[in-house]
Amino acid sequence: MRKALAIDVGGTKIYSTIIDENGEIISEIEKNKTPKTLEEIIETFKKIIKKHEDEVDIIAFSTCGAVNNENNKILGSTGNIASGYPTTNFKELSDKKPVFVENDANCAAWAEHEIGASKGCPNSIMITLGTGVGGGLILNNKLFKGKNGAAGEMHFKMSTDKKRKCTCGAWDCFEIYASGTGLKITAEEMLNNKDVTTYDVIGGAKNNDEKMIKVLQRWQDDITEGLIGLSNIFDPDCIVLSGSMAEFVNTDEMEKKVNAEIVTTPTKIYKATAGNYSGMIGAALLALNKEV
Amino acid sequence: MRKALAIDVGGTKIYSTIIDENGEIISEIEKNKTPKTLEEIIETFKKIIKKHEDEVDIIAFSTCGAVNNENNKILGSTGNIASGYPTTNFKELSDKKPVFVENDANCAAWAEHEIGASKGCPNSIMITLGTGVGGGLILNNKLFKGKNGAAGEMHFKMSTDKKRKCTCGAWDCFEIYASGTGLKITAEEMLNNKDVTTYDVIGGAKNNDEKMIKVLQRWQDDITEGLIGLSNIFDPDCIVLSGSMAEFVNTDEMEKKVNAEIVTTPTKIYKATAGNYSGMIGAALLALNKEV
Repeated sequence: MRKALAIDVGGTKIYSTIIDENGEIISEIEKNKTPKTLEEIIETFKKIIKKHEDEVDIIAFSTCGAVNNENNKILGSTGNIASGYPTTNFKELSDKKPVFVENDANCAAWAEHEIGASKGCPNSIMITLGTGVGGGLILNNKLFKGKNGAAGEMHFKMSTDKKRKCTCGAWDCFEIYASGTGLKITAEEMLNNKDVTTYDVIGGAKNNDEKMIKVLQRWQDDITEGLIGLSNIFDPDCIVLSGSMAEFVNTDEMEKKVNAEIVTTPTKIYKATAGNYSGMIGAALLALNKEV
Repeated sequence: MRKALAIDVGGTKIYSTIIDENGEIISEIEKNKTPKTLEEIIETFKKIIKKHEDEVDIIAFSTCGAVNNENNKILGSTGNIASGYPTTNFKELSDKKPVFVENDANCAAWAEHEIGASKGCPNSIMITLGTGVGGGLILNNKLFKGKNGAAGEMHFKMSTDKKRKCTCGAWDCFEIYASGTGLKITAEEMLNNKDVTTYDVIGGAKNNDEKMIKVLQRWQDDITEGLIGLSNIFDPDCIVLSGSMAEFVNTDEMEKKVNAEIVTTPTKIYKATAGNYSGMIGAALLALNKEV
Protein backbone atom coordinates (compact mmCIF):
# COMPACT_ATOMS: atom_id res chain seq x y z
CA MET A 1 0.00 0.00 0.00
CA ARG A 2 1.24 3.50 -0.88
CA LYS A 3 2.25 5.79 1.97
CA ALA A 4 3.03 9.45 2.63
CA LEU A 5 5.22 11.13 5.21
CA ALA A 6 2.82 13.79 6.51
CA ILE A 7 4.17 16.94 8.17
CA ASP A 8 1.89 19.48 9.83
CA VAL A 9 3.39 22.97 10.23
CA GLY A 10 1.75 25.37 12.66
CA GLY A 11 2.90 28.50 14.44
CA THR A 12 3.83 26.60 17.61
CA LYS A 13 4.35 22.92 16.68
CA ILE A 14 5.46 20.71 13.83
CA TYR A 15 3.89 17.24 13.84
CA SER A 16 4.87 14.37 11.58
CA THR A 17 3.84 10.77 10.94
CA ILE A 18 3.38 8.20 8.19
CA ILE A 19 -0.11 7.76 6.70
CA ASP A 20 -1.29 5.15 4.19
CA GLU A 21 -3.66 5.61 1.26
CA ASN A 22 -6.63 4.66 3.44
CA GLY A 23 -5.89 7.62 5.70
CA GLU A 24 -4.62 5.36 8.52
CA ILE A 25 -1.85 6.72 10.72
CA ILE A 26 0.69 3.87 10.70
CA SER A 27 3.59 5.24 12.76
CA GLU A 28 4.14 7.20 15.94
CA ILE A 29 3.23 10.91 15.87
CA GLU A 30 6.47 12.90 16.25
CA LYS A 31 6.30 16.38 17.75
CA ASN A 32 8.73 19.28 17.40
CA LYS A 33 8.42 22.84 18.61
CA THR A 34 8.28 25.25 15.66
CA PRO A 35 11.69 26.99 15.75
CA LYS A 36 11.91 30.78 15.67
CA THR A 37 14.08 31.16 12.54
CA LEU A 38 13.54 29.98 8.99
CA GLU A 39 16.92 28.20 8.96
CA GLU A 40 15.98 26.12 12.01
CA ILE A 41 12.55 25.34 10.55
CA ILE A 42 14.19 24.03 7.34
CA GLU A 43 16.67 22.04 9.49
CA THR A 44 13.74 20.43 11.33
CA PHE A 45 12.00 19.56 8.04
CA LYS A 46 15.21 18.00 6.65
CA LYS A 47 15.80 15.93 9.79
CA ILE A 48 12.23 14.53 9.70
CA ILE A 49 12.43 13.84 5.96
CA LYS A 50 15.88 12.20 6.08
CA LYS A 51 14.66 9.84 8.80
CA HIS A 52 11.57 8.64 6.92
CA GLU A 53 11.81 9.35 3.18
CA ASP A 54 12.86 5.80 2.31
CA GLU A 55 9.72 4.38 3.90
CA VAL A 56 7.22 6.44 1.84
CA ASP A 57 6.16 7.36 -1.70
CA ILE A 58 5.67 11.09 -1.16
CA ILE A 59 6.14 13.84 1.41
CA ALA A 60 2.95 15.76 2.22
CA PHE A 61 2.93 19.08 4.08
CA SER A 62 -0.17 20.51 5.76
CA THR A 63 0.84 24.10 6.48
CA CYS A 64 -0.39 27.44 7.76
CA GLY A 65 -0.68 29.92 4.86
CA ALA A 66 -2.38 29.76 1.46
CA VAL A 67 -0.68 27.43 -1.04
CA ASN A 68 -0.54 27.78 -4.84
CA ASN A 69 -2.40 25.53 -7.29
CA GLU A 70 0.81 23.66 -8.14
CA ASN A 71 1.11 22.64 -4.45
CA ASN A 72 4.75 23.66 -4.10
CA LYS A 73 4.77 27.24 -2.79
CA ILE A 74 3.17 29.35 -0.08
CA LEU A 75 1.38 32.50 -1.23
CA GLY A 76 1.85 35.61 0.89
CA SER A 77 2.24 35.79 4.65
CA THR A 78 1.35 33.24 7.29
CA GLY A 79 0.92 35.02 10.63
CA ASN A 80 2.80 33.79 13.66
CA ILE A 81 5.69 31.88 12.11
CA ALA A 82 9.15 33.06 10.92
CA SER A 83 8.52 35.82 8.38
CA GLY A 84 10.73 34.17 5.73
CA TYR A 85 8.76 30.90 5.90
CA PRO A 86 6.70 31.53 2.72
CA THR A 87 9.94 31.56 0.71
CA THR A 88 10.58 27.90 1.61
CA ASN A 89 11.45 25.82 -1.46
CA PHE A 90 9.61 22.64 -0.50
CA LYS A 91 10.69 20.67 -3.56
CA GLU A 92 14.35 20.96 -2.54
CA LEU A 93 13.74 19.39 0.86
CA SER A 94 14.12 15.91 -0.63
CA ASP A 95 15.96 14.69 -3.70
CA LYS A 96 14.55 11.20 -3.29
CA LYS A 97 10.80 11.76 -3.11
CA PRO A 98 8.28 14.28 -4.46
CA VAL A 99 7.04 16.93 -2.03
CA PHE A 100 3.41 18.11 -1.91
CA VAL A 101 2.16 21.13 0.04
CA GLU A 102 -1.37 22.24 0.88
CA ASN A 103 -2.98 24.70 3.28
CA ASP A 104 -3.90 23.11 6.65
CA ALA A 105 -7.60 24.06 6.56
CA ASN A 106 -7.88 22.67 3.02
CA CYS A 107 -6.17 19.46 4.17
CA ALA A 108 -8.54 19.12 7.13
CA ALA A 109 -11.54 19.73 4.84
CA TRP A 110 -10.31 16.98 2.52
CA ALA A 111 -9.84 14.56 5.44
CA GLU A 112 -13.44 15.20 6.54
CA HIS A 113 -14.59 14.58 2.96
CA GLU A 114 -12.63 11.32 2.65
CA ILE A 115 -13.00 9.72 6.09
CA GLY A 116 -14.88 12.17 8.31
CA ALA A 117 -18.11 14.10 8.83
CA SER A 118 -18.66 15.15 5.22
CA LYS A 119 -17.96 11.73 3.69
CA GLY A 120 -20.51 11.17 0.90
CA CYS A 121 -21.21 14.91 0.56
CA PRO A 122 -20.19 16.26 -2.89
CA ASN A 123 -20.41 19.87 -1.68
CA SER A 124 -19.20 20.80 1.79
CA ILE A 125 -17.70 23.79 3.56
CA MET A 126 -15.33 23.23 6.44
CA ILE A 127 -14.72 25.98 8.97
CA THR A 128 -12.00 25.68 11.59
CA LEU A 129 -12.82 27.63 14.74
CA GLY A 130 -9.63 28.19 16.72
CA THR A 131 -7.64 31.26 17.77
CA GLY A 132 -8.37 32.31 14.18
CA VAL A 133 -10.73 30.88 11.57
CA GLY A 134 -9.77 28.66 8.63
CA GLY A 135 -11.88 27.53 5.71
CA GLY A 136 -11.87 24.77 3.11
CA LEU A 137 -14.28 24.30 0.21
CA ILE A 138 -15.09 20.93 -1.31
CA LEU A 139 -17.16 21.46 -4.46
CA ASN A 140 -18.30 18.64 -6.72
CA ASN A 141 -16.07 16.26 -4.74
CA LYS A 142 -12.94 18.32 -5.37
CA LEU A 143 -10.97 20.76 -3.25
CA PHE A 144 -11.76 24.21 -4.66
CA LYS A 145 -8.75 26.54 -4.69
CA GLY A 146 -9.69 29.49 -6.94
CA LYS A 147 -7.45 31.15 -9.49
CA ASN A 148 -4.21 31.09 -7.47
CA GLY A 149 -4.98 28.66 -4.65
CA ALA A 150 -6.09 31.07 -1.94
CA ALA A 151 -9.86 30.37 -1.93
CA GLY A 152 -11.71 29.52 1.27
CA GLU A 153 -10.66 32.54 3.33
CA MET A 154 -13.47 33.27 5.78
CA HIS A 155 -13.02 37.03 5.65
CA PHE A 156 -16.43 38.32 4.70
CA LYS A 157 -18.12 41.22 6.49
CA MET A 158 -20.40 40.86 9.48
CA SER A 159 -20.93 44.63 9.58
CA THR A 160 -20.15 47.70 7.50
CA ASP A 161 -19.91 49.93 10.58
CA LYS A 162 -16.21 49.41 11.38
CA LYS A 163 -16.81 47.83 14.77
CA ARG A 164 -13.97 45.31 15.10
CA LYS A 165 -10.61 45.31 13.37
CA CYS A 166 -9.72 41.85 12.07
CA THR A 167 -6.23 40.32 12.29
CA CYS A 168 -6.10 40.68 8.47
CA GLY A 169 -6.19 44.46 8.80
CA ALA A 170 -9.72 44.92 7.44
CA TRP A 171 -12.85 45.59 9.49
CA ASP A 172 -15.49 43.18 10.76
CA CYS A 173 -14.54 39.96 9.02
CA PHE A 174 -16.33 36.74 10.02
CA GLU A 175 -13.03 35.58 11.54
CA ILE A 176 -12.99 38.33 14.18
CA TYR A 177 -16.47 37.30 15.34
CA ALA A 178 -16.34 33.50 14.96
CA SER A 179 -12.84 32.81 16.34
CA GLY A 180 -11.77 32.33 19.95
CA THR A 181 -10.46 35.86 19.75
CA GLY A 182 -13.94 36.89 18.57
CA LEU A 183 -15.54 35.23 21.59
CA LYS A 184 -13.23 37.21 23.89
CA ILE A 185 -14.18 40.48 22.15
CA THR A 186 -17.90 39.63 22.33
CA ALA A 187 -17.44 39.02 26.07
CA GLU A 188 -15.52 42.28 26.51
CA GLU A 189 -18.28 44.21 24.74
CA MET A 190 -21.22 42.54 26.48
CA LEU A 191 -19.68 42.55 29.97
CA ASN A 192 -17.83 45.85 29.60
CA ASN A 193 -14.71 44.16 30.98
CA LYS A 194 -11.39 44.20 29.12
CA ASP A 195 -9.89 41.41 31.25
CA VAL A 196 -12.42 38.67 30.56
CA THR A 197 -10.95 35.63 28.73
CA THR A 198 -12.43 32.94 26.50
CA TYR A 199 -11.76 30.53 29.37
CA ASP A 200 -13.87 32.70 31.71
CA VAL A 201 -16.73 32.47 29.23
CA ILE A 202 -16.44 28.73 28.60
CA GLY A 203 -15.94 27.92 32.30
CA GLY A 204 -18.70 30.30 33.38
CA ALA A 205 -21.19 28.90 30.86
CA LYS A 206 -20.43 25.36 32.07
CA ASN A 207 -21.20 26.50 35.62
CA ASN A 208 -24.50 28.00 34.48
CA ASP A 209 -23.41 31.63 34.81
CA GLU A 210 -26.24 33.34 32.94
CA LYS A 211 -24.13 36.24 31.69
CA MET A 212 -21.54 33.88 30.25
CA ILE A 213 -24.25 31.71 28.66
CA LYS A 214 -25.56 34.84 26.92
CA VAL A 215 -22.08 35.75 25.66
CA LEU A 216 -21.55 32.24 24.29
CA GLN A 217 -24.98 32.32 22.66
CA ARG A 218 -24.26 35.65 20.97
CA TRP A 219 -20.94 34.28 19.65
CA GLN A 220 -22.72 31.20 18.31
CA ASP A 221 -25.46 33.35 16.75
CA ASP A 222 -22.83 35.42 14.94
CA ILE A 223 -21.31 32.23 13.53
CA THR A 224 -24.80 31.12 12.48
CA GLU A 225 -25.32 34.41 10.59
CA GLY A 226 -22.15 33.66 8.63
CA LEU A 227 -23.29 30.11 7.87
CA ILE A 228 -26.58 31.46 6.49
CA GLY A 229 -24.64 33.47 3.91
CA LEU A 230 -22.41 30.54 2.97
CA SER A 231 -25.46 28.27 2.61
CA ASN A 232 -27.12 30.74 0.25
CA ILE A 233 -23.95 31.15 -1.80
CA PHE A 234 -23.07 27.43 -2.10
CA ASP A 235 -26.28 25.39 -1.52
CA PRO A 236 -23.95 22.87 0.19
CA ASP A 237 -24.78 19.34 1.34
CA CYS A 238 -23.22 20.18 4.70
CA ILE A 239 -21.05 22.52 6.72
CA VAL A 240 -18.44 20.97 9.01
CA LEU A 241 -17.17 22.83 12.07
CA SER A 242 -13.75 21.82 13.37
CA GLY A 243 -11.05 23.25 15.60
CA SER A 244 -10.74 23.70 19.36
CA MET A 245 -13.68 26.15 19.59
CA ALA A 246 -16.13 23.92 17.67
CA GLU A 247 -16.62 21.97 20.90
CA PHE A 248 -18.64 24.86 22.32
CA VAL A 249 -21.32 25.30 19.66
CA ASN A 250 -24.70 23.61 19.43
CA THR A 251 -24.87 22.44 15.82
CA ASP A 252 -28.51 21.26 16.08
CA GLU A 253 -29.60 24.75 17.11
CA MET A 254 -27.46 26.34 14.39
CA GLU A 255 -28.79 23.99 11.72
CA LYS A 256 -32.39 24.85 12.62
CA LYS A 257 -31.71 28.60 12.43
CA VAL A 258 -29.82 28.31 9.16
CA ASN A 259 -32.52 26.22 7.48
CA ALA A 260 -35.25 28.57 8.70
CA GLU A 261 -33.60 31.56 6.98
CA ILE A 262 -31.93 30.38 3.77
CA VAL A 263 -33.48 30.76 0.31
CA THR A 264 -31.60 27.70 -1.00
CA THR A 265 -32.32 24.11 0.10
CA PRO A 266 -31.86 22.66 3.64
CA THR A 267 -28.31 21.87 4.68
CA LYS A 268 -26.68 19.91 7.54
CA ILE A 269 -24.25 21.24 10.11
CA TYR A 270 -21.82 18.72 11.58
CA LYS A 271 -18.87 18.74 13.91
CA ALA A 272 -15.65 17.34 12.45
CA THR A 273 -14.91 13.66 13.14
CA ALA A 274 -11.56 13.06 11.40
CA GLY A 275 -9.65 13.84 14.60
CA ASN A 276 -6.80 16.07 15.73
CA TYR A 277 -4.49 14.95 12.95
CA SER A 278 -6.96 15.58 10.12
CA GLY A 279 -4.54 18.09 8.56
CA MET A 280 -1.87 15.42 8.11
CA ILE A 281 -4.43 12.85 6.97
CA GLY A 282 -5.86 15.23 4.35
CA ALA A 283 -2.38 16.22 3.13
CA ALA A 284 -1.40 12.57 2.76
CA LEU A 285 -4.60 11.64 0.90
CA LEU A 286 -4.39 14.65 -1.42
CA ALA A 287 -0.71 13.97 -2.13
CA LEU A 288 -1.20 10.23 -2.76
CA ASN A 289 -4.21 11.03 -4.93
CA LYS A 290 -2.30 13.59 -6.99
CA GLU A 291 0.57 11.14 -7.49
CA VAL A 292 -1.60 8.39 -9.05
CA MET B 1 -24.96 24.75 -37.21
CA ARG B 2 -27.00 23.67 -34.18
CA LYS B 3 -29.56 26.12 -32.82
CA ALA B 4 -31.75 26.66 -29.75
CA LEU B 5 -35.06 28.42 -29.31
CA ALA B 6 -34.28 30.62 -26.31
CA ILE B 7 -37.08 31.88 -24.05
CA ASP B 8 -36.48 34.36 -21.25
CA VAL B 9 -39.15 34.41 -18.54
CA GLY B 10 -39.29 37.36 -16.17
CA GLY B 11 -41.96 38.80 -13.91
CA THR B 12 -43.08 41.35 -16.51
CA LYS B 13 -41.98 40.10 -19.95
CA ILE B 14 -41.31 36.93 -21.89
CA TYR B 15 -38.70 37.30 -24.64
CA SER B 16 -37.86 34.69 -27.26
CA THR B 17 -35.50 34.23 -30.20
CA ILE B 18 -33.32 31.68 -31.99
CA ILE B 19 -29.63 31.47 -31.06
CA ASP B 20 -26.90 29.40 -32.71
CA GLU B 21 -24.05 27.49 -31.04
CA ASN B 22 -21.75 30.52 -31.38
CA GLY B 23 -24.13 32.53 -29.23
CA GLU B 24 -25.35 34.59 -32.20
CA ILE B 25 -28.96 35.80 -32.17
CA ILE B 26 -30.21 34.74 -35.62
CA SER B 27 -33.88 35.72 -35.58
CA GLU B 28 -36.06 38.61 -34.46
CA ILE B 29 -36.52 39.06 -30.67
CA GLU B 30 -40.20 38.41 -29.91
CA LYS B 31 -41.74 40.08 -26.86
CA ASN B 32 -44.79 39.07 -24.86
CA LYS B 33 -46.13 40.48 -21.60
CA THR B 34 -45.93 37.90 -18.83
CA PRO B 35 -49.58 36.92 -18.26
CA LYS B 36 -51.11 36.95 -14.76
CA THR B 37 -52.17 33.31 -14.54
CA LEU B 38 -50.19 30.10 -14.89
CA GLU B 39 -52.56 28.82 -17.60
CA GLU B 40 -51.94 31.88 -19.77
CA ILE B 41 -48.17 31.65 -19.20
CA ILE B 42 -48.18 28.02 -20.38
CA GLU B 43 -50.33 29.06 -23.37
CA THR B 44 -47.75 31.71 -24.30
CA PHE B 45 -44.90 29.18 -24.02
CA LYS B 46 -46.75 26.68 -26.21
CA LYS B 47 -47.52 29.29 -28.87
CA ILE B 48 -43.85 30.36 -29.07
CA ILE B 49 -42.63 26.77 -29.14
CA LYS B 50 -45.14 25.59 -31.74
CA LYS B 51 -44.09 28.43 -34.05
CA HIS B 52 -40.34 27.68 -33.91
CA GLU B 53 -39.63 24.14 -32.68
CA ASP B 54 -39.07 22.75 -36.17
CA GLU B 55 -36.27 25.25 -36.79
CA VAL B 56 -34.15 24.31 -33.74
CA ASP B 57 -32.44 21.42 -31.95
CA ILE B 58 -33.48 22.28 -28.41
CA ILE B 59 -35.66 24.69 -26.42
CA ALA B 60 -33.75 26.66 -23.77
CA PHE B 61 -35.47 28.58 -20.98
CA SER B 62 -33.77 31.32 -18.97
CA THR B 63 -36.13 31.84 -16.05
CA CYS B 64 -36.60 33.65 -12.76
CA GLY B 65 -36.31 31.18 -9.84
CA ALA B 66 -33.71 28.57 -8.89
CA VAL B 67 -33.64 25.51 -11.16
CA ASN B 68 -32.71 21.92 -10.23
CA ASN B 69 -29.51 20.15 -11.34
CA GLU B 70 -31.45 18.15 -13.94
CA ASN B 71 -32.49 21.43 -15.62
CA ASN B 72 -36.15 20.54 -15.84
CA LYS B 73 -37.85 21.96 -12.74
CA ILE B 74 -38.00 25.18 -10.74
CA LEU B 75 -37.17 24.89 -7.04
CA GLY B 76 -39.31 26.90 -4.64
CA SER B 77 -40.88 30.27 -5.23
CA THR B 78 -40.02 32.93 -7.79
CA GLY B 79 -41.27 36.28 -6.53
CA ASN B 80 -43.45 38.41 -8.80
CA ILE B 81 -44.88 35.85 -11.22
CA ALA B 82 -47.99 33.61 -10.97
CA SER B 83 -47.59 31.59 -7.77
CA GLY B 84 -48.18 28.26 -9.55
CA TYR B 85 -45.36 28.92 -12.04
CA PRO B 86 -42.75 26.69 -10.28
CA THR B 87 -45.02 23.69 -10.90
CA THR B 88 -44.59 24.10 -14.68
CA ASN B 89 -43.68 20.82 -16.36
CA PHE B 90 -41.23 22.18 -18.94
CA LYS B 91 -40.54 18.84 -20.57
CA GLU B 92 -44.22 18.52 -21.62
CA LEU B 93 -44.14 21.84 -23.49
CA SER B 94 -42.82 20.11 -26.61
CA ASP B 95 -43.07 16.53 -27.79
CA LYS B 96 -40.71 17.22 -30.69
CA LYS B 97 -37.65 18.72 -29.03
CA PRO B 98 -35.88 18.48 -25.66
CA VAL B 99 -36.49 21.33 -23.23
CA PHE B 100 -33.72 22.76 -21.02
CA VAL B 101 -34.28 25.19 -18.13
CA GLU B 102 -31.79 27.25 -16.14
CA ASN B 103 -31.96 30.21 -13.76
CA ASP B 104 -31.63 33.58 -15.52
CA ALA B 105 -28.67 34.85 -13.48
CA ASN B 106 -26.85 31.56 -14.08
CA CYS B 107 -27.59 31.86 -17.83
CA ALA B 108 -26.28 35.44 -17.91
CA ALA B 109 -23.14 34.37 -16.01
CA TRP B 110 -22.56 31.63 -18.57
CA ALA B 111 -23.02 34.06 -21.48
CA GLU B 112 -20.40 36.38 -19.96
CA HIS B 113 -18.06 33.39 -19.56
CA GLU B 114 -18.57 32.24 -23.16
CA ILE B 115 -18.74 35.49 -25.11
CA GLY B 116 -18.60 38.38 -22.63
CA ALA B 117 -16.58 40.09 -19.92
CA SER B 118 -15.35 36.94 -18.14
CA LYS B 119 -14.30 35.07 -21.30
CA GLY B 120 -11.01 33.32 -20.55
CA CYS B 121 -11.57 33.46 -16.77
CA PRO B 122 -11.89 29.96 -15.25
CA ASN B 123 -13.34 31.38 -12.01
CA SER B 124 -15.82 34.24 -12.11
CA ILE B 125 -18.72 35.54 -10.08
CA MET B 126 -21.51 37.39 -11.82
CA ILE B 127 -23.80 39.69 -9.88
CA THR B 128 -26.91 41.17 -11.44
CA LEU B 129 -27.84 44.51 -9.90
CA GLY B 130 -31.47 45.29 -10.71
CA THR B 131 -34.62 45.75 -8.65
CA GLY B 132 -33.24 42.72 -6.81
CA VAL B 133 -29.85 41.00 -6.98
CA GLY B 134 -29.02 37.79 -8.84
CA GLY B 135 -25.87 35.73 -8.76
CA GLY B 136 -24.10 33.15 -10.89
CA LEU B 137 -20.90 31.25 -10.09
CA ILE B 138 -18.53 29.92 -12.74
CA LEU B 139 -15.91 27.74 -11.05
CA ASN B 140 -13.21 25.87 -12.95
CA ASN B 141 -14.97 26.79 -16.21
CA LYS B 142 -18.27 25.21 -15.12
CA LEU B 143 -21.51 26.66 -13.84
CA PHE B 144 -21.58 25.81 -10.11
CA LYS B 145 -25.05 24.85 -8.87
CA GLY B 146 -24.54 23.25 -5.43
CA LYS B 147 -26.33 20.17 -4.15
CA ASN B 148 -29.79 20.93 -5.54
CA GLY B 149 -29.13 23.68 -8.06
CA ALA B 150 -29.84 26.75 -5.92
CA ALA B 151 -26.26 28.03 -5.41
CA GLY B 152 -25.33 31.63 -6.19
CA GLU B 153 -27.93 33.36 -4.04
CA MET B 154 -26.45 36.66 -2.91
CA HIS B 155 -28.12 36.60 0.49
CA PHE B 156 -25.27 36.97 2.91
CA LYS B 157 -25.35 39.39 5.85
CA MET B 158 -24.13 42.97 5.70
CA SER B 159 -25.01 43.46 9.37
CA THR B 160 -26.12 41.41 12.37
CA ASP B 161 -28.07 44.33 13.84
CA LYS B 162 -31.42 43.77 12.08
CA LYS B 163 -31.38 47.05 10.20
CA ARG B 164 -33.12 46.22 6.91
CA LYS B 165 -35.57 43.46 6.16
CA CYS B 166 -34.73 41.73 2.88
CA THR B 167 -37.34 40.62 0.34
CA CYS B 168 -36.41 37.02 1.27
CA GLY B 169 -37.75 37.56 4.79
CA ALA B 170 -34.36 37.55 6.54
CA TRP B 171 -32.47 40.62 7.78
CA ASP B 172 -29.68 42.60 6.14
CA CYS B 173 -28.86 40.44 3.12
CA PHE B 174 -26.45 41.83 0.49
CA GLU B 175 -29.45 42.05 -1.86
CA ILE B 176 -31.27 44.65 0.24
CA TYR B 177 -28.17 46.88 0.16
CA ALA B 178 -26.84 46.27 -3.37
CA SER B 179 -30.13 46.30 -5.33
CA GLY B 180 -32.01 49.28 -6.74
CA THR B 181 -34.35 48.84 -3.80
CA GLY B 182 -31.27 49.00 -1.58
CA LEU B 183 -30.21 52.29 -3.15
CA LYS B 184 -33.66 53.75 -2.39
CA ILE B 185 -33.43 52.63 1.25
CA THR B 186 -29.90 54.06 1.57
CA ALA B 187 -31.24 57.36 0.22
CA GLU B 188 -34.22 57.28 2.60
CA GLU B 189 -31.93 56.70 5.56
CA MET B 190 -29.27 59.26 4.62
CA LEU B 191 -31.70 61.98 3.55
CA ASN B 192 -34.38 61.20 6.11
CA ASN B 193 -36.97 61.30 3.33
CA LYS B 194 -39.35 58.40 2.66
CA ASP B 195 -40.35 59.70 -0.77
CA VAL B 196 -36.94 59.80 -2.43
CA THR B 197 -36.63 57.41 -5.41
CA THR B 198 -33.68 55.69 -7.09
CA TYR B 199 -34.33 58.03 -10.03
CA ASP B 200 -33.93 61.06 -7.75
CA VAL B 201 -30.55 59.72 -6.65
CA ILE B 202 -29.32 58.82 -10.14
CA GLY B 203 -30.61 62.05 -11.67
CA GLY B 204 -29.33 64.16 -8.78
CA ALA B 205 -25.88 62.60 -8.89
CA LYS B 206 -25.68 63.26 -12.64
CA ASN B 207 -26.49 66.92 -11.94
CA ASN B 208 -23.72 67.08 -9.32
CA ASP B 209 -26.07 67.23 -6.34
CA GLU B 210 -23.59 66.53 -3.53
CA LYS B 211 -26.10 64.80 -1.26
CA MET B 212 -27.09 62.41 -4.04
CA ILE B 213 -23.46 61.76 -4.93
CA LYS B 214 -22.86 60.75 -1.31
CA VAL B 215 -25.87 58.41 -1.34
CA LEU B 216 -24.69 56.76 -4.55
CA GLN B 217 -21.16 56.42 -3.12
CA ARG B 218 -22.45 54.78 0.05
CA TRP B 219 -24.50 52.31 -2.02
CA GLN B 220 -21.43 51.50 -4.13
CA ASP B 221 -19.27 51.12 -1.01
CA ASP B 222 -21.76 48.62 0.44
CA ILE B 223 -21.56 46.60 -2.79
CA THR B 224 -17.76 46.77 -2.56
CA GLU B 225 -17.88 45.38 1.00
CA GLY B 226 -19.80 42.40 -0.35
CA LEU B 227 -17.33 41.87 -3.19
CA ILE B 228 -14.45 41.82 -0.67
CA GLY B 229 -16.07 38.85 1.07
CA LEU B 230 -16.73 37.02 -2.20
CA SER B 231 -13.13 37.62 -3.34
CA ASN B 232 -11.80 36.13 -0.11
CA ILE B 233 -14.11 33.13 -0.36
CA PHE B 234 -13.50 32.34 -4.05
CA ASP B 235 -10.12 33.88 -5.07
CA PRO B 236 -11.84 34.53 -8.44
CA ASP B 237 -10.23 35.70 -11.67
CA CYS B 238 -12.93 38.34 -11.93
CA ILE B 239 -16.29 39.60 -10.77
CA VAL B 240 -18.78 40.75 -13.41
CA LEU B 241 -21.50 43.28 -12.59
CA SER B 242 -24.57 43.23 -14.81
CA GLY B 243 -28.15 44.46 -14.72
CA SER B 244 -29.74 47.89 -15.03
CA MET B 245 -28.08 49.28 -11.88
CA ALA B 246 -24.53 48.22 -12.87
CA GLU B 247 -24.41 51.30 -15.08
CA PHE B 248 -24.09 53.49 -12.00
CA VAL B 249 -21.04 51.95 -10.30
CA ASN B 250 -17.39 52.83 -10.80
CA THR B 251 -15.70 49.45 -11.22
CA ASP B 252 -12.14 50.89 -11.24
CA GLU B 253 -12.73 52.43 -7.83
CA MET B 254 -14.32 49.23 -6.53
CA GLU B 255 -11.50 47.06 -7.85
CA LYS B 256 -8.89 49.20 -6.09
CA LYS B 257 -10.75 49.01 -2.77
CA VAL B 258 -11.31 45.25 -3.06
CA ASN B 259 -7.68 44.52 -3.90
CA ALA B 260 -6.47 46.73 -1.05
CA GLU B 261 -8.44 44.71 1.51
CA ILE B 262 -8.51 41.08 0.46
CA VAL B 263 -6.21 38.39 1.88
CA THR B 264 -6.40 36.35 -1.35
CA THR B 265 -4.85 37.42 -4.67
CA PRO B 266 -5.84 40.49 -6.77
CA THR B 267 -9.03 40.19 -8.77
CA LYS B 268 -10.67 42.18 -11.59
CA ILE B 269 -14.06 43.83 -11.55
CA TYR B 270 -15.78 44.21 -14.91
CA LYS B 271 -19.13 45.36 -16.22
CA ALA B 272 -21.04 42.79 -18.27
CA THR B 273 -20.61 42.98 -22.04
CA ALA B 274 -22.82 40.16 -23.37
CA GLY B 275 -25.77 42.52 -23.77
CA ASN B 276 -29.40 42.73 -22.75
CA TYR B 277 -30.20 39.24 -24.03
CA SER B 278 -27.37 37.49 -22.21
CA GLY B 279 -29.90 35.32 -20.33
CA MET B 280 -31.18 33.83 -23.59
CA ILE B 281 -27.67 33.50 -25.01
CA GLY B 282 -26.44 31.68 -21.90
CA ALA B 283 -29.48 29.40 -21.83
CA ALA B 284 -28.96 28.50 -25.50
CA LEU B 285 -25.24 27.81 -25.06
CA LEU B 286 -25.76 25.75 -21.90
CA ALA B 287 -28.55 23.76 -23.56
CA LEU B 288 -26.61 23.13 -26.79
CA ASN B 289 -23.56 22.19 -24.72
CA LYS B 290 -25.53 19.74 -22.59
CA GLU B 291 -27.01 18.15 -25.71
CA VAL B 292 -23.62 17.35 -27.30
